Amino acid sequence: MDNKKLIYMDNAATTSVKEEVVKEMIKYLSEKYANPSSIYSISQEVKEDIESARERIAKTLNADRKEIYFTSCGTESDNWAIKGTASFLKDKGKHIITSAIEHHAVLHSMKALEREGYEVTYIGVDENGFIKIDELKKAIRKDTILISIMAANNEIGTIEPIKEIAKIAHENNIYFHTDAVQAYGHIPLDVKDMDIDMLSVSAHKFHGPKGVGFLYIKKGVKINNLLDGGGQERGKRPGTENVASIMGMAKAAEIATENMSENNEKMTKVRDHLIDRILKEIPYTRLNGDKVKRLSNNVNISIEYIEGESMLLGLDFKGICASSGSACTSGSLDPSHVLLAIGLKHEVAHGSLRLSLSEENTIEEADYVVDNLVEIVNELRNMSPLWEDFIKQNK
Amino acid sequence: MDNKKLIYMDNAATTSVKEEVVKEMIKYLSEKYANPSSIYSISQEVKEDIESARERIAKTLNADRKEIYFTSCGTESDNWAIKGTASFLKDKGKHIITSAIEHHAVLHSMKALEREGYEVTYIGVDENGFIKIDELKKAIRKDTILISIMAANNEIGTIEPIKEIAKIAHENNIYFHTDAVQAYGHIPLDVKDMDIDMLSVSAHKFHGPKGVGFLYIKKGVKINNLLDGGGQERGKRPGTENVASIMGMAKAAEIATENMSENNEKMTKVRDHLIDRILKEIPYTRLNGDKVKRLSNNVNISIEYIEGESMLLGLDFKGICASSGSACTSGSLDPSHVLLAIGLKHEVAHGSLRLSLSEENTIEEADYVVDNLVEIVNELRNMSPLWEDFIKQNK
Repeated sequence: MDNKKLIYMDNAATTSVKEEVVKEMIKYLSEKYANPSSIYSISQEVKEDIESARERIAKTLNADRKEIYFTSCGTESDNWAIKGTASFLKDKGKHIITSAIEHHAVLHSMKALEREGYEVTYIGVDENGFIKIDELKKAIRKDTILISIMAANNEIGTIEPIKEIAKIAHENNIYFHTDAVQAYGHIPLDVKDMDIDMLSVSAHKFHGPKGVGFLYIKKGVKINNLLDGGGQERGKRPGTENVASIMGMAKAAEIATENMSENNEKMTKVRDHLIDRILKEIPYTRLNGDKVKRLSNNVNISIEYIEGESMLLGLDFKGICASSGSACTSGSLDPSHVLLAIGLKHEVAHGSLRLSLSEENTIEEADYVVDNLVEIVNELRNMSPLWEDFIKQNK
Repeated sequence: MDNKKLIYMDNAATTSVKEEVVKEMIKYLSEKYANPSSIYSISQEVKEDIESARERIAKTLNADRKEIYFTSCGTESDNWAIKGTASFLKDKGKHIITSAIEHHAVLHSMKALEREGYEVTYIGVDENGFIKIDELKKAIRKDTILISIMAANNEIGTIEPIKEIAKIAHENNIYFHTDAVQAYGHIPLDVKDMDIDMLSVSAHKFHGPKGVGFLYIKKGVKINNLLDGGGQERGKRPGTENVASIMGMAKAAEIATENMSENNEKMTKVRDHLIDRILKEIPYTRLNGDKVKRLSNNVNISIEYIEGESMLLGLDFKGICASSGSACTSGSLDPSHVLLAIGLKHEVAHGSLRLSLSEENTIEEADYVVDNLVEIVNELRNMSPLWEDFIKQNK
């Protein structure tokens, strides 16, 4: 990366790591490198430090320390919650309910279970991306063992009513898991008030390091291990603890939750400025996701008659980092499953733009992005035969 | 950790992270934080960097770049190799062969498979910890799908004849996996010459960071995923790449392999000095593991008529970090399964000491350790009723 001014608006893909977080990590990468499972003093100190990290993270969710299990990422947390529940409860039932707009860590775990004989119902969403609650209620069967619905969508930012869904799950004696990878640190989450059984988090979505996350598992909820081995994490998740990253995650979690409302206020202003200007200045655009119940850092707009990848490359040329959907499926030519689920046509889904903010983005940056976007869209449309036909027909 | 001089001899549990490695990691924790799956330039640069890391790691094993898959640790690599093979080949057969002295990441994965209806044969070892090859040959059945034998034992340092075992596996059309977590960076490993199908590695055993490892999978060897999700690692291991740790691991891998013979020479001198002095100066001791085909950093000695934990606490009091077995099972009161497998009695296994070196340990440190160990053992024996009885009986 060179020194040219970059405008980073892809914080849903990953975030920069806070300086305080890097500093904390360096301490555990250098002098405090001992293995927390050994019995000598320097190890026991490290052990205490990660237990304090566990406690501090638990607090951000109103959870208990013993309900937090460190993992290697959000994907592992999702896989563990889903596959661990499925195999533990297989004698009770083999039916699972999820939504059509989950992250691939959830959807592809479901596909893996289907190959093993489980049945999965994928609940649809309305045009704003909200789970169809009636459909969910109707899908519940006697052999339903798990409902897994994300807290907020990673592409369109829609915030799902997980408290209501958890209630429905529990009225039917079904476990409720939520993929909170995009939500944690951005919206308040209280596992007791929301009555959540399992909740997945990834540190690199809130200015922590990549390669570390956690799974909250409510006391009393029993699931099988995904990984087998040593006795770490009270026998539930083996492997030498990733100490530096765990300590970094705890620091990032505290910073994110302490500054949540202030950051959300800042980002909402920039977000709405982006949305208003783009919808006003570029014709044939639409906002994807709900306007109100939406992550404060998410902008997702479909721009008709252009091809998303060319637009992103044009933005990149201007030093703007943006995305058309989830980073995990970049390189894939399939249109976003989320945008298709909210009812967009293939060709419209292909021309979508996701701008995801951090609290460091400014109104000035937003203006720079829109100014350039307007130009790029005009250029791309002028080169497009589809646009030409459309204009002729509508003259 | 305070500033008092520490003698760290628990490098089989974990190692300090090299300064150059930390420096490399900081670069990717701070400015180069982009998600390698995004399409803008700064992401593509990071993508190129991790592909270069993959290439450099592949070289250390004489593997091809596309045969290296990044994971979160050695435990995940072992779980993936074993469970991924088992589920992929379940229609071919459900019998697996391993040894009685594997790491728990292997043994407990086997136990998980047994609960799912697989059959596992645990091959015994001789008094030096070598796999009984005849027993292994006899255990092979028509439905055997995998042989998993470690490259070097983490407790007693014995180096197994994995080239010979791979040959036997392949003559019988069986996949061969090796847990090389303790061996990699310490003994030369050439996956082509040794004809290995899968090989597990963890970075924190060779002065890299915790929380990252890799699985080598030979081209053409097909196994199922352990984790399902995004398209990372060519669709085989999802989750945003742990960029900083991957770059750190590559740096550590290069340093370890480049300096391997020099380091081994240094460590062998310190190791043999420790072994010779302890066996000579403390009566009723025995070396565990082979004297020659042994990791150059491993000392494992059983000391009769003492209790291991008290000895370790005594050493800790003198600033010496050592272990009685594997860190992953510290806190457990069960004696080491490895020491039992080589024929030690429970009470002897309980009084064992593992000193595992890095190239930074010196003869002076070794002398300090032995001087203190002699005193501690004397004190502990003087307090032990068993020792008193024994002395009376042998007067």
